Amino acid sequence: MIFSHESMPGPMTEAPTASPGAAPAFADIEAAAARLAGWAVETPLLNPPALDHQFGGRVLLKAETLQRTGSFKFRGAFNRISQIPEAERGAGVVTYSSGNHAQGVAAAAALLGVPATIVMPEDAPAIKVANTRGLGAEVVLYDRFTEDREALAVALAAERGATLVRPYDDPGVIAGQGTCGLEIARQAAARGLEIDALLVCCGGGGLTAGCALALTELSPRTRVYTVEPAGFDDTRRSLAAGARVGNDPAARSFCDALLAPTPGELTFPINRRLVAGGFAVSDDEVRAAMGYGFRTLKLVLEPGGAVALAALLAGRLETHGKTVALTLSGGNVDPETYREMLAAEGSAPA
Amino acid sequence: MIFSHESMPGPMTEAPTASPGAAPAFADIEAAAARLAGWAVETPLLNPPALDHQFGGRVLLKAETLQRTGSFKFRGAFNRISQIPEAERGAGVVTYSSGNHAQGVAAAAALLGVPATIVMPEDAPAIKVANTRGLGAEVVLYDRFTEDREALAVALAAERGATLVRPYDDPGVIAGQGTCGLEIARQAAARGLEIDALLVCCGGGGLTAGCALALTELSPRTRVYTVEPAGFDDTRRSLAAGARVGNDPAARSFCDALLAPTPGELTFPINRRLVAGGFAVSDDEVRAAMGYGFRTLKLVLEPGGAVALAALLAGRLETHGKTVALTLSGGNVDPETYREMLAAEGSAPA
Repeated sequence: MIFSHESMPGPMTEAPTASPGAAPAFADIEAAAARLAGWAVETPLLNPPALDHQFGGRVLLKAETLQRTGSFKFRGAFNRISQIPEAERGAGVVTYSSGNHAQGVAAAAALLGVPATIVMPEDAPAIKVANTRGLGAEVVLYDRFTEDREALAVALAAERGATLVRPYDDPGVIAGQGTCGLEIARQAAARGLEIDALLVCCGGGGLTAGCALALTELSPRTRVYTVEPAGFDDTRRSLAAGARVGNDPAARSFCDALLAPTPGELTFPINRRLVAGGFAVSDDEVRAAMGYGFRTLKLVLEPGGAVALAALLAGRLETHGKTVALTLSGGNVDPETYREMLAAEGSAPA
Repeated sequence: MIFSHESMPGPMTEAPTASPGAAPAFADIEAAAARLAGWAVETPLLNPPALDHQFGGRVLLKAETLQRTGSFKFRGAFNRISQIPEAERGAGVVTYSSGNHAQGVAAAAALLGVPATIVMPEDAPAIKVANTRGLGAEVVLYDRFTEDREALAVALAAERGATLVRPYDDPGVIAGQGTCGLEIARQAAARGLEIDALLVCCGGGGLTAGCALALTELSPRTRVYTVEPAGFDDTRRSLAAGARVGNDPAARSFCDALLAPTPGELTFPINRRLVAGGFAVSDDEVRAAMGYGFRTLKLVLEPGGAVALAALLAGRLETHGKTVALTLSGGNVDPETYREMLAAEGSAPA
């Protein structure tokens, strides 16, 4: 079933809820775009001359840092929560998140009048915890190294009769994130550009799966790649192995948004089918990308939101004569972390 | 004489040079837009939901931080330098600037194959000096408190037979900056919005004059206001007095881009005719605006580029039910200054 922008213009329009567990299709992304119209920001697809010059091609940046709540996560959260039947909304939603999905759910729930409870790690960036609370959500903290956040959230949801909104293994969330890819494809096409490669910042794989579904439909020649922090490159290794493999529990990275332990159950089959491959970047490469954001792009990037740019700047991809797009997926970084990055970066010229 | 986008599409198209000293008209801004097409970035007019919510109206941000060289100054520089006759280009251009006009001139000159020499204050932000040199320009440093930068530049230009490109008292520069206002008016109109008030970051008044000329033509109901650092609010006081008055030489502000001593000779008559009034903001209010840029907008703002936002955030203007636009005119800030701002801001929630 196809929902077009035209036939479903209202953000509050009721639409069939995707069955839990069923992989979303392109039509679900179009339906999500109709639900999000007027609520989400259509973020700009930037094309900074400095990057074109440096890479000898066209570089397009999807600035999801400028999305409501400072990351793409609002898209999936709003799409999912707006599909909860009226009778079930009063019991609220529960989720678990290191911070960006938390803020996305808190903002979407507040706009839709649904109570929200978010399970967040004790060591999540203070700005993310503060913003989530500021958006009216109840925050329950847990220890990332000893407790199982998913089990906690499932128990909490059951206890309250609330709807669990998983950060990526949910077809409504994936379809919502896919609207980012829909916009990338349409904004590039509007300038007469065909994207050769799209680099997507990847945690559990929801944004990647949504974008891959959208690009496969609208720009089938585009090759989609994941970018992850080194040590948390489970999707890259899983794509290579053809099966889901996890990360070493001893791995550490300051890319707090991208520390999912394994590819998602629902996202991986989509990504395995549609994604060309993956890259991993070091924390130092991410810091350099954040510094480039500050010095040259004038955009505030959080570590996890800068991994795709880091892969580009580190030369992971052939760019000469190509059109390369990438997601700047979030900008929610603590002042202290940003200050340390700037100190490490020094005042290197752009 | 009217030049339209359609009849003059090429950036290198020759066009009559405006006579030095003659005030530019709206047609000159349209001609400038044609020259800049393909060279300058059409920067986004952002409309962050957080600001709309906070101010009970529509808030539109013209993100000139995303312009080539990180400020609007490239517009005026490119428009002016592209009008230098071929035979005079070899002798180069000379200018004086605290840094943003310097980078704009350096970048425009490099793209047009013209040698550039820039007189800059010894205490200009290191990032601006480094970027200006990085763009291939020769930098001559002077002492801001004891030497006359304009006299220095005039002498240098005479000595070399070079063209002097003044930062604001030049009709070609004003017309170039006016393309920023042209875009604001057209981008707002494309969304069906009529702007009630436009707040413009003001130093010598070139951006203000250009924007006022554009808005007066395209959106005559819009009231244009200047915003300046306290102590450097010469335009605000001059508008009130009806004549050019200067600043106290003892005044200090960290808004390095906006320290012009008096309104321009060419810009003030335009602004006196077309501008509704002016506001002044303290350095603390500017720091708060830069912090808001970091926390909520995810945009890197330099002090001088944040004054208009500071005026909005400080409640200088009635916003309820209104559509207010403002310029974020630059993002070239030293890491050290930014780190100090973040430390002063702490980790206040958005």
